[in-house]
Amino acid sequence: MSDPHKKPARPEIPRKTVYRLSVYMRCLQRLKSNAIRTVSSEALAKAAGVKPTQLRKDLTYFGQFGTRGLGYDVEELGKMISDLLGTNSLQPVVLVGVGNLGSALLAYRGFEKEGFEIIAAFDALPKQKRDAVKPVYRMDKLKDFVRDRSVRMAILTVPATVAQEVTNELVDAGITGILNFAPFVLQVPEEVVVNNVNLAIELENLSYFIQS
Amino acid sequence: MSDPHKKPARPEIPRKTVYRLSVYMRCLQRLKSNAIRTVSSEALAKAAGVKPTQLRKDLTYFGQFGTRGLGYDVEELGKMISDLLGTNSLQPVVLVGVGNLGSALLAYRGFEKEGFEIIAAFDALPKQKRDAVKPVYRMDKLKDFVRDRSVRMAILTVPATVAQEVTNELVDAGITGILNFAPFVLQVPEEVVVNNVNLAIELENLSYFIQS
Repeated sequence: MSDPHKKPARPEIPRKTVYRLSVYMRCLQRLKSNAIRTVSSEALAKAAGVKPTQLRKDLTYFGQFGTRGLGYDVEELGKMISDLLGTNSLQPVVLVGVGNLGSALLAYRGFEKEGFEIIAAFDALPKQKRDAVKPVYRMDKLKDFVRDRSVRMAILTVPATVAQEVTNELVDAGITGILNFAPFVLQVPEEVVVNNVNLAIELENLSYFIQS
Repeated sequence: MSDPHKKPARPEIPRKTVYRLSVYMRCLQRLKSNAIRTVSSEALAKAAGVKPTQLRKDLTYFGQFGTRGLGYDVEELGKMISDLLGTNSLQPVVLVGVGNLGSALLAYRGFEKEGFEIIAAFDALPKQKRDAVKPVYRMDKLKDFVRDRSVRMAILTVPATVAQEVTNELVDAGITGILNFAPFVLQVPEEVVVNNVNLAIELENLSYFIQS
């Protein structure tokens, strides 16, 4: 079993570059499903909504790709990015906090085709719903479960008031990547990565910009 | 009825500043609920996870706030931000695409306490679920509904393959703010604002950084 507390291996790559890799990969998947074998950096950049210089700069972090005058091999570049993102095999994820949003995400079946499987959920007061397809356990089962199954990633959908406390438990159990939906700025050790998603804040942001 | 195609009124403010306003507002709400009346820029910045210089710079866009030596008035600053974000009254939102994720978000009751109400959903093949609390209409009802109810914001949860086509319909109906969950780069007129949320991409990004 690998040490969950080791540092991220490639911390020098900007977070935004990695986000764009995900977008490039989806564009390449679409090209591939349309039986397109090569793509120019201009065409791929346009599909991804970035400038060609940005695309080339992003890929330069990972080596030399593409052939002058021919462009990129769609399948080869797609596979390289998928390897980098670790989505070639299904990764186990736990979800913590089975309230409204947690239940909704637990019912959402869309993660698996993207390479992620929520294998269990945890809650302070677990209520196993009749139609639930995933087990919901008490929080005191979290640590052993995460260790036994070598889970590294967690989706956090608890109230803001307990988000830090639960995060400490996740880190203690060996979780190193947290997708945080709680409207709270989590404090984590340097080797743990937190991505924040706040749907209300996204709506507020839109609301600001559409005001007359 | 206001013209939905007019330009955003304050386009000079960086998108990230507006995101941070949402965070500051939540911090202020927490302080207020703890009966705290004033807060220093250092304390508020720390709670929001930013530097005090960042906080002061962000607020400078909107005027002069705070009193040297005393800090910010918690209630006053919170109300100012809430006014800016337009969350003092419940804003109507439509959801388009009632698949897995759309159903999950439709079932999620958390938006209303944040100032947003999904008043209806639309789908190419609407299936009104027995336990649904919101009406689900056919796409051809969208335009009249949005116009009659003066809806400005939409949550887009359709497959990538139809995302652009549906976006064109939304823009045509008068929607000016789109929260897009489809893994697709939407092309919209300048006066329309799109915020993208892609949960799979957030997980992939974590996955990249936690790899050993």
